[in-house]
Amino acid sequence: MAPPPSAASRIGVLLLRSLTFACLVISLILLTTDTATLEVDLLEFKVRFKDVYAYRYMVATTVMGMAYSLCQIVLTLYYITTGNRLMSDDNNLQFDFYGDKVVSYVLLSGAAAAFGATKDMKPLFSGSGDVDKFFNKGYASASLLLLGFVCTAMLSVYSSYALPKKV
Amino acid sequence: MAPPPSAASRIGVLLLRSLTFACLVISLILLTTDTATLEVDLLEFKVRFKDVYAYRYMVATTVMGMAYSLCQIVLTLYYITTGNRLMSDDNNLQFDFYGDKVVSYVLLSGAAAAFGATKDMKPLFSGSGDVDKFFNKGYASASLLLLGFVCTAMLSVYSSYALPKKV
Repeated sequence: MAPPPSAASRIGVLLLRSLTFACLVISLILLTTDTATLEVDLLEFKVRFKDVYAYRYMVATTVMGMAYSLCQIVLTLYYITTGNRLMSDDNNLQFDFYGDKVVSYVLLSGAAAAFGATKDMKPLFSGSGDVDKFFNKGYASASLLLLGFVCTAMLSVYSSYALPKKV
Repeated sequence: MAPPPSAASRIGVLLLRSLTFACLVISLILLTTDTATLEVDLLEFKVRFKDVYAYRYMVATTVMGMAYSLCQIVLTLYYITTGNRLMSDDNNLQFDFYGDKVVSYVLLSGAAAAFGATKDMKPLFSGSGDVDKFFNKGYASASLLLLGFVCTAMLSVYSSYALPKKV
């Protein structure tokens, strides 16, 4: 069994989780409020994030990441205030390890899908209405998601080192 | 220091690395031979993977993954045949851990970017020449890259458990 983590490392982990959560919240707000008017043959269409499949997927991954971060923040605060854990130490380390690993993959896939789609779609619609602004906000949202991924990847390295060895 | 891995786990790791390498080679061949003819206003344009930014990125990530897998396969075969390692055991475990982690992220980002771009671009060009076939081959290539990622992610879980503990 691993020794219990120091207070400094617990606070570092809590800060990284809070930073992840903050990035994801801002990313979600940016993306869901992102609208544009597309002009095609003198007709105007309203474009929202729902019209780009990659952005829908990005929203799904962001929400999943937010739920996980919030759950981890609550568990850490509960531990700091009461000194008890809801799970045994080993189960807790396994949960951190697999959680951080899977969620970091999920966040990265959302950000990469959004970057890939935005980079290739933006030139196709360039100049029609304010679509440039729409895609730029998409970039900003994906960048924040990428920052959330970087924090989670750092947590994933930490939770891998904390893992009890089996092989 | 971790105990040396058993022969069975060494062979399992070698098989997973070889499977990753094979998936990446087929993915690269599929993508680089993927061409189509796009018809716009009675003009015909030749489309290659280089014309889609996400596919260029996918090629870069695939080549990086292939180089890493090949390097790991050579190191493992050298160890199996001579019984010696080029690095100390601890350095070797660290190299496996960070290598598998970073390369799995790289492969996933390539596959996700390609899926994101293909899903959103395909309907835009649907019906113009044989572009549907072009994007379908893009999907196939990205799926193989995703399979390579899954193998590397499994190796990454294994190398995390094998890691010497520090925290």
